[in-house]
Amino acid sequence: MAVTKKTAAKPVATAADVKTLKKIEQLATESLKAVSKGDTPSIAIRQRTLSNVSFNTKKKIIELGDKTQSREFFNINMARKFMQTFLVANGCKTLIQEGKTISIRQMFYMTKHTLKGTNENTFEDQSESDPIIEDLEVGIDALREELHLFANRRGLVVGRLIVNDAGDEIDLAKMGRGGWGIPSICEDDSLKFVRNTAEFILLVEKQAIFHRLNEDRFWEKHKCIMMTSEGQAARGARRLLQRMSKELKIPIYVLVDNDPWGLYIYSVLKQGSINLAYESMRMAVPDIRFLGMSAFDYKKFGLTSAATIKLSKEDITRAEQMRAYPWFKDKKWQREIQGLLDNQFKMEVDALLTKSISFITEEYIPKKLADRDYLQ
Amino acid sequence: MAVTKKTAAKPVATAADVKTLKKIEQLATESLKAVSKGDTPSIAIRQRTLSNVSFNTKKKIIELGDKTQSREFFNINMARKFMQTFLVANGCKTLIQEGKTISIRQMFYMTKHTLKGTNENTFEDQSESDPIIEDLEVGIDALREELHLFANRRGLVVGRLIVNDAGDEIDLAKMGRGGWGIPSICEDDSLKFVRNTAEFILLVEKQAIFHRLNEDRFWEKHKCIMMTSEGQAARGARRLLQRMSKELKIPIYVLVDNDPWGLYIYSVLKQGSINLAYESMRMAVPDIRFLGMSAFDYKKFGLTSAATIKLSKEDITRAEQMRAYPWFKDKKWQREIQGLLDNQFKMEVDALLTKSISFITEEYIPKKLADRDYLQ
Repeated sequence: MAVTKKTAAKPVATAADVKTLKKIEQLATESLKAVSKGDTPSIAIRQRTLSNVSFNTKKKIIELGDKTQSREFFNINMARKFMQTFLVANGCKTLIQEGKTISIRQMFYMTKHTLKGTNENTFEDQSESDPIIEDLEVGIDALREELHLFANRRGLVVGRLIVNDAGDEIDLAKMGRGGWGIPSICEDDSLKFVRNTAEFILLVEKQAIFHRLNEDRFWEKHKCIMMTSEGQAARGARRLLQRMSKELKIPIYVLVDNDPWGLYIYSVLKQGSINLAYESMRMAVPDIRFLGMSAFDYKKFGLTSAATIKLSKEDITRAEQMRAYPWFKDKKWQREIQGLLDNQFKMEVDALLTKSISFITEEYIPKKLADRDYLQ
Repeated sequence: MAVTKKTAAKPVATAADVKTLKKIEQLATESLKAVSKGDTPSIAIRQRTLSNVSFNTKKKIIELGDKTQSREFFNINMARKFMQTFLVANGCKTLIQEGKTISIRQMFYMTKHTLKGTNENTFEDQSESDPIIEDLEVGIDALREELHLFANRRGLVVGRLIVNDAGDEIDLAKMGRGGWGIPSICEDDSLKFVRNTAEFILLVEKQAIFHRLNEDRFWEKHKCIMMTSEGQAARGARRLLQRMSKELKIPIYVLVDNDPWGLYIYSVLKQGSINLAYESMRMAVPDIRFLGMSAFDYKKFGLTSAATIKLSKEDITRAEQMRAYPWFKDKKWQREIQGLLDNQFKMEVDALLTKSISFITEEYIPKKLADRDYLQ
């Protein structure tokens, strides 16, 4: 397939595309209907406010509630936003029809123009168009990726998995030291899992740790897939992780620094974030396991003060906030966060090099896995 | 090779490794000799100061001069730095012998410990170890990559090139929408070019532009290799570009935003930077061509005000500084920078989407190439 095609553009929309197109068209026809009946056209959009966000203890994800806000066309305050919503919706329709995807910055340019006979621009800058994209996602219940829009990509993956992306078959066990760049959009119409021989997935926050493990061929010996999120996980990495969790059905372990930021990265991967609560269903991976670093690893692995950094005031405040989150209410998590505070120091995964270069590959992770020493 | 090996670690050092090991050993034996003769051991390190940096108009790169600074062991102010230099040199020796590479942060941890019988640490934080690494690079004339150290990686590559990295053969024409993550270390003992069918290389600053071109399969139709530096190019990307320039012998075009930051990214790729002047020989690629965006593209391609952003005061100051750099002295560059100032606006490559989604793929780049409309 990859050999003969001259372009990756897909003139024929996929099933997912057809569904999204219908949602956009429905939005438009309902507005038109309202106008022709003499009513005020409006869109009901679920409120993205803290008061409309809650933790679903059953599903174990952060969710957006049902409170809605109505956006009316003939309300002076709303007219500009209404126009912008339809400009973006129309842009997405074009993208889907042409089988192309663009960044949210590019959508800003695609829909920006000066209104005829005025000096007014449809959008002044991207801070105007980004919330409109979020409105549209929530309003018609479609991920931005389904609208053919993407945020910047970040993250790499290697290991015992063969994927097919946009017609190319890619063996993630043959990526050298480079790794495959996780695409911005990891929906199933473009990315498919062809063959998995991995028994688990290991996600590490830090790029340099991923490099260390990849150079040591950890994934080969331990039969796994390895990802790095390169810090806070981007949307592409989160979607890929959720899809791997559901489709490959193998455990996922996460290794982050032993500090409040590391806990936060883990927490967003697991139950989603307050800001993007409306997308938790498609992004969160409640099954992931926290492999470390744990505050208790200091003693367990005989680390020394060279491996530690004193907690800052900000770290302490942040850790105390974490302790109060409903998703960290469980006794084992309370103990873990208390352990960090009691230590009075944080530790980076990189600090395992105070033991030896490949301590993390040869001792730390194998022992944590063998002891089933993780939190969930 | 990739099939049978169980680890990427190379117990047998490569020719480059042997050379670097010798340099480290020479540093150590010379210091020992001085001590046994009753002299003060010292290292002569070329000064990394502005006054010792100049633009070589013949080679067209920014170079470090020959002024040196002597670091003496028995000088109280220098003793700590001297110890640190040998700790890092010893760490690098171990890395080379074990065939492993680590990040500069990891080197900090690898060499950090509390001196016996004292409360003093060998290093307090990374801001102490990073300059020591630079000292060592300059002192023994070895890139940090040759010392088996790396900075964070950044950047992706796709297109008509097959490489072999760490024993894996990787076809960059079969990377889907993801691209191959450019490794931190692109030296020739681990990364080899197997087969090139590209006629040129296109480097774009922005990830989203790379995505647009990759989705449109630009590299397939136009027979090229495509890279994104994802902003300012990381060391791995710069080394890869230099090696491709020398070994593949095909032209390289660079596409950045039409603003002072874009010019700076281009300039560092081309002649190196003042900060890393001692590495220009190994990093700079004087042959690259500036494809755009040019200030004159606004008229040439019939763009509208929707594509523009007003220059800030800072932009103007920065552009005026650029105009004074010796490497921008040429008339054509003076005209280009004056064009930016005269326009009073800057333009992002993304702004080409104000024309149409694939305008950049179908019209902008092909026309620039056909017209040989670039600066060098």
